[in-house]
Amino acid sequence: MKVANFYPGPSRVYSNITEYIYEAYMDGIMSVNHRSEDFMNLMELTKKELREKLQIPADYEIAFISSATENWEIIAQSLTQKASQHFYNGAFGEKWASYAGKLTSTINTHFGINEELPTGDIAKKADVLCVTQNETSNATQVSMKSLKMLREENVGKIIAVDVTSSLGGVKLDFTLADVWYASVQKCLGLPAGMGVMILSPFAVQTAEKIGERDHYNSLLNILENTRKNQTQYTPNVLGIYLLYKTQQATKGIDYIESKLEKRMEEYVSFVDAQDQINYLITNEKVRSRTVLALETSRMEELKSGAKEQSIILGNGYGPWKSSTFRVANFPAIKNKEVEKLMEFLRSFTGVSAR
Amino acid sequence: MKVANFYPGPSRVYSNITEYIYEAYMDGIMSVNHRSEDFMNLMELTKKELREKLQIPADYEIAFISSATENWEIIAQSLTQKASQHFYNGAFGEKWASYAGKLTSTINTHFGINEELPTGDIAKKADVLCVTQNETSNATQVSMKSLKMLREENVGKIIAVDVTSSLGGVKLDFTLADVWYASVQKCLGLPAGMGVMILSPFAVQTAEKIGERDHYNSLLNILENTRKNQTQYTPNVLGIYLLYKTQQATKGIDYIESKLEKRMEEYVSFVDAQDQINYLITNEKVRSRTVLALETSRMEELKSGAKEQSIILGNGYGPWKSSTFRVANFPAIKNKEVEKLMEFLRSFTGVSAR
Repeated sequence: MKVANFYPGPSRVYSNITEYIYEAYMDGIMSVNHRSEDFMNLMELTKKELREKLQIPADYEIAFISSATENWEIIAQSLTQKASQHFYNGAFGEKWASYAGKLTSTINTHFGINEELPTGDIAKKADVLCVTQNETSNATQVSMKSLKMLREENVGKIIAVDVTSSLGGVKLDFTLADVWYASVQKCLGLPAGMGVMILSPFAVQTAEKIGERDHYNSLLNILENTRKNQTQYTPNVLGIYLLYKTQQATKGIDYIESKLEKRMEEYVSFVDAQDQINYLITNEKVRSRTVLALETSRMEELKSGAKEQSIILGNGYGPWKSSTFRVANFPAIKNKEVEKLMEFLRSFTGVSAR
Repeated sequence: MKVANFYPGPSRVYSNITEYIYEAYMDGIMSVNHRSEDFMNLMELTKKELREKLQIPADYEIAFISSATENWEIIAQSLTQKASQHFYNGAFGEKWASYAGKLTSTINTHFGINEELPTGDIAKKADVLCVTQNETSNATQVSMKSLKMLREENVGKIIAVDVTSSLGGVKLDFTLADVWYASVQKCLGLPAGMGVMILSPFAVQTAEKIGERDHYNSLLNILENTRKNQTQYTPNVLGIYLLYKTQQATKGIDYIESKLEKRMEEYVSFVDAQDQINYLITNEKVRSRTVLALETSRMEELKSGAKEQSIILGNGYGPWKSSTFRVANFPAIKNKEVEKLMEFLRSFTGVSAR
């Protein structure tokens, strides 16, 4: 892969993926029956590896589904009794609210891109609170501190958190919420086509209390299957295998987080050192650690320059489409690719290397 | 892959899969954004290739979903107004009825494993008729002749057909039904993790008339996306690419069907030539062409013998679990693997080679 891909959607996959896939073929993993002993062993190992490397509490359940979009539906369908309250400042949080709104009553709480999560503003009626921890559209994040406040002030409510662009890149305190969900094509560095769901004991109890069993992806069906190390549908077995192999190869979330933080520092000192490119998010505290949204008035020039160097930058999203570009700070991206991007940005802005 | 895998679930994948995957990695396909021009081109080419190779009518829509299980839900949710009538003689048809029964009113019509589809037995109330064209659990099939009778006698009703274990292996007359669905891990020879849906103009009109838009996988949402060469969720892009490459490499359904028929003839002459192994299905007319269910009184011996030769046979399913074994007759299985199996079966039964 000669191109350096910084797109914060599906992005760079781990470079040993093709090697693992060859192994999967030779070992017959690609053809394995998802109700067989071999698959159940793989599923058990994969969940064990995720639990260890991402520091997921022992009493939290892990399940695989088809996408983060499917998660929106599962939460509305199997965990919401009265209403879900959605806090958002960007496109993905808003989409979640809109999908949920078709199945259940919703309360929408919009906040500014430089503001912290408005944790005081909770509707009495809401039994599920929905937070986009990392909003990929504008590169903001909700801090663990804000989540902690939300948690402490809302005992008895389900807290559901979208970590699509942060799971596997940022250290999350899973005890602070009940439903965490993500896709594998971002910080987990895999080809798209699978979602991950992480559930607290309270989420499980709530699903049991509600007892919704009408759908193939009813949460109780998902839980019964994952507890047997199976899935509620014929899963992306290769995706599960690749998740196992890539997680097995990582040094764990502490190491990854510090690696990504070092890269962020490099980006920050670059942005500080010149005045051609600026952060969209001026409040440092709410800036995403895994996605950067940057403004420049020389956008066309920047994009064509990057393309010439075989560097893929993300476009801006929604209202920030033409004024910003985005850069993924995902673990699978290589040091030499970051160096290549930095070199390009330095030469573009006329800043000499440190 | 040294093992010869005849399991009729996820089964042998095409042997050029790893090569295509390497290409996908080098070309950046694994990291491609599913809303990008590159992806839309891939999706267009994939549908074009499927249409050509499987002889799908020009006015039928093709869409990708996560699994055949998801299809059950989509049909009940977006296409059924009053009731769906389910014709089945085995486990998968029965499961479909049971999943649909949670979302809509259902009428269950059971028929014997040696009987043809009871096309005369139609409930007035039913607006969707559900047929399992190839029942993987007992290796029966519904003929195109039966489907034609069903079609002609039921103008105005939606006919939905499960072709999970036959799409890509058997020539289907798509004009005889409105919804056809399958998974990629059977006759399409790919790693599991994707479903295909093929829809007639009448199915599209019916979905539009019903107007169900509450779910992320509402049929109207699926259709709107596939018409733009996109998908309703972040799809298994690698799966779509592999479907494109493998279909591009095939010689089309006429060639494949005749190849599989030749293999069937070989199996038939073997079964006729000895009395240790018999067909579960005695009525030739309803025997599946892509899955064999065979009985033997020496089951344990057969299974351990096959295992010693690195041959994976399918277990029996449901009521036929201990009395039968199953053999996939899928296109990706190689001639030399079929020869290996035949040699083993001949030596097991004491029948000398022709």
